[in-house]
Amino acid sequence: MEFIRLEGLSLKKQILNNIKKEVTENKYDIKLVTIQVGDNPASSIYIKNKISSCIYAGVKTLSLKFEEDTKESVIISKIQDLNNDKSVNGIMVQLPLPAHLNRNNIINAISESKDVDGITDTNLGKLVQGGNGFIPCTPKGIIRLLQHHNINFKPQSKVVIVGTSIIVGLPLSIMFKNMQLTVTTCNIFTTDIEKHIKTADLLVSAIGKRDVIKTEWLTKKQYVIDIGINRYNNKVVGDINFELAKKVVKGLTPTPGGAGPVTVACLVENTYLAFIRQNKLD
Amino acid sequence: MEFIRLEGLSLKKQILNNIKKEVTENKYDIKLVTIQVGDNPASSIYIKNKISSCIYAGVKTLSLKFEEDTKESVIISKIQDLNNDKSVNGIMVQLPLPAHLNRNNIINAISESKDVDGITDTNLGKLVQGGNGFIPCTPKGIIRLLQHHNINFKPQSKVVIVGTSIIVGLPLSIMFKNMQLTVTTCNIFTTDIEKHIKTADLLVSAIGKRDVIKTEWLTKKQYVIDIGINRYNNKVVGDINFELAKKVVKGLTPTPGGAGPVTVACLVENTYLAFIRQNKLD
Repeated sequence: MEFIRLEGLSLKKQILNNIKKEVTENKYDIKLVTIQVGDNPASSIYIKNKISSCIYAGVKTLSLKFEEDTKESVIISKIQDLNNDKSVNGIMVQLPLPAHLNRNNIINAISESKDVDGITDTNLGKLVQGGNGFIPCTPKGIIRLLQHHNINFKPQSKVVIVGTSIIVGLPLSIMFKNMQLTVTTCNIFTTDIEKHIKTADLLVSAIGKRDVIKTEWLTKKQYVIDIGINRYNNKVVGDINFELAKKVVKGLTPTPGGAGPVTVACLVENTYLAFIRQNKLD
Repeated sequence: MEFIRLEGLSLKKQILNNIKKEVTENKYDIKLVTIQVGDNPASSIYIKNKISSCIYAGVKTLSLKFEEDTKESVIISKIQDLNNDKSVNGIMVQLPLPAHLNRNNIINAISESKDVDGITDTNLGKLVQGGNGFIPCTPKGIIRLLQHHNINFKPQSKVVIVGTSIIVGLPLSIMFKNMQLTVTTCNIFTTDIEKHIKTADLLVSAIGKRDVIKTEWLTKKQYVIDIGINRYNNKVVGDINFELAKKVVKGLTPTPGGAGPVTVACLVENTYLAFIRQNKLD
């Protein structure tokens, strides 16, 4: 069987084009507000990418930037204003936040109906229930990427996820569980990680560190989603060595150009969905 | 090493006695409202057990029973009244509900602060975040039971959960993940379930069917929590054959008398906590 490069740029374009078409034809007026606290350069790049995808799809954006030392109450008060502002459809707070701010307090200030990142308590709870809230963008993007490349799993399929962050690994494991798959979640403490990885039909690496997962551990029956982003020799690379691994596995995401672009498109799509739901157009 | 019978009756008594002491000393006036729709005989027994544990601990109860064919709006309207009633500290809806009722609509009508079963979207989302909401009673009871018997897991420990219901398996897997353990969740479709079970340091069986898990698959390094409840030869038995398995594993819950009694005590404890939080006594 031929190796499948699980690239996400074409899917990103497809998702954004679909939204652009709807927005143009129906003259929809949709707005996403991004909130950044401090000057983390990686955060600035992420926000820039999100804004340019919004612009492409015809979704307006407003970027708010707070000083590093802004008080929690000031940010929460601003979020409450945005919740009450009918011209705003989606609100996203770029993470991580400076250490003096309570992440949960700030995120949960966002109205459930405008939480396009899907990470308020209520939307995460809806995800657990298998329900109809907003799904976090990276897990949603991963599922969409697999579907886009016609990769379907049987109920017997086994998923192994390495890394269980609140943004990716944990919600993704919940989604796969609700799809009736057998799921193992590993973390840095897992001792027999090699053994787990060898059993996987689908491996998701969300470590953020190169070469924890060795190419020798991969098998020819596997698809691999690598969402790690690491700098190495002045290049951006994933957790897994792409050039070596592609000779082994059935399919693998390139880095960059894998699940990342789809994640950004899913944020725009969630904003579009927020608009549709708020205006009861669904 | 000697086999440990992971019995839960002594822990149940301990939890209830602690609450009773606080209630008596401080003259706390705490009330739990139970809601039953229809006449499911198993539900009636569960509610009776919950009420008698409340009475033991000095927590008042009010049991509401609706006819099988009651409209959803009638039940939701009653729940809203109870949300607004300051004399009510906890509200629980006995599941399963009749088929014409939407479980999510009814459960999510309960105020987050009175949801002592911990199964509203918001409380499940807080569980995902590792936060401070109400924890569902069976998963909470299982963790407490392990602690009570001084069973501690290292981060390297591996947990296998068979059965991923919204009430038990799924929230329990989230809790173990937040404890940094390696967790595999299996379901009826998992083909190599035997292989998974053999790797477990802790096995949780939440199947509700006898003999899916064979005694031969168990190992001497395992603790086993069996929360299945099945009728067999006019007796109540678990998913696993206790008499055979106790000769193999390090520890196992008896059925009845394992995690079940602790679950009921945890409901009373959550009601007590709801009272404490509502009155800002914590």
